[in-house]
Amino acid sequence: MSGAVQVGAEQQAAQDVRRLTRTVADFPVDGVQFADLSPVFADGPALAHVVAALATAGPCDLVAGIDARGFLLGSGVALNLGVGVLPVRKAGKLPPPVHSESYALEYGEATLQVPAEGIELRGRRVLVVDDVLATGGTVAAAVALLRRCGAEVVGAAVVLEIPGLGGREVLDGLPLTCLVPA
Amino acid sequence: MSGAVQVGAEQQAAQDVRRLTRTVADFPVDGVQFADLSPVFADGPALAHVVAALATAGPCDLVAGIDARGFLLGSGVALNLGVGVLPVRKAGKLPPPVHSESYALEYGEATLQVPAEGIELRGRRVLVVDDVLATGGTVAAAVALLRRCGAEVVGAAVVLEIPGLGGREVLDGLPLTCLVPA
Repeated sequence: MSGAVQVGAEQQAAQDVRRLTRTVADFPVDGVQFADLSPVFADGPALAHVVAALATAGPCDLVAGIDARGFLLGSGVALNLGVGVLPVRKAGKLPPPVHSESYALEYGEATLQVPAEGIELRGRRVLVVDDVLATGGTVAAAVALLRRCGAEVVGAAVVLEIPGLGGREVLDGLPLTCLVPA
Repeated sequence: MSGAVQVGAEQQAAQDVRRLTRTVADFPVDGVQFADLSPVFADGPALAHVVAALATAGPCDLVAGIDARGFLLGSGVALNLGVGVLPVRKAGKLPPPVHSESYALEYGEATLQVPAEGIELRGRRVLVVDDVLATGGTVAAAVALLRRCGAEVVGAAVVLEIPGLGGREVLDGLPLTCLVPA
């Protein structure tokens, strides 16, 4: 007996991610296993599957992509949902004026910024998109920053979740879409 | 007499870019007029128009998006053309091994890198996408790097061209798609 198996965007995306992700030891610092998703993004069908699967976290009025790998996914998800993309950038990259939020990283410290002029955030439903959820510090800082700007954060969507680092807990109940869970 | 006027993706995109771009004086350094395209990207219809207009520079096998604002456009153009996106990154951002190309900037110096493992570039038709063409140094370095990796660069596509900086000449005859020309 044979039959066509219907595979959803999420399952197809998870298969692509597992097949194409390259693991690199000790990057960016010793002891960290870096999940290199570049080969996933560089594959046409895989990119389309991943973007479609992340877009199931919508609807929203705006997608926030986190600097810089989140940009690769965020604009695709935004196009898929028919909305625009907001760059959530590292310090010093956006022209003034900006809103800022500093936070502790797994290795070091960082500041995120969003434009304070030209883009209305107040009352808008925003979906935060990034490539990997590790400690959750970056995504949580983006969420805090967006909320402080008056946005309603409807959820976060990531490709990979690194197990054992507590990222999900840091997000404190925010709906999380993750294509390859722990 | 009245009639519907057919507006192509390029014209619509150019209108959106002119309407939504914010000009910021003296950023990132004194004397530079920064064209902030964030409000264009954050507008759903404008993002879709811009991506569709840039995609007319295809077909290609892979889109190369330049770190970091080129990522916002590159992945959209890639999805539009049904191909993947290659991140052309600033030094130190990609895990090893990488191919590198250093070049002089308008203000300073920089190095671009692409993955040397996991993504085949040899013989592939690549379209380079970035937000702004100024002196052309960054786009030219990306083109040189991709060619050194065996790719066939079919063209470059940018949203804005800053007049009077010689960017077009630096590209030395490479087909250039520019939504808002000088």
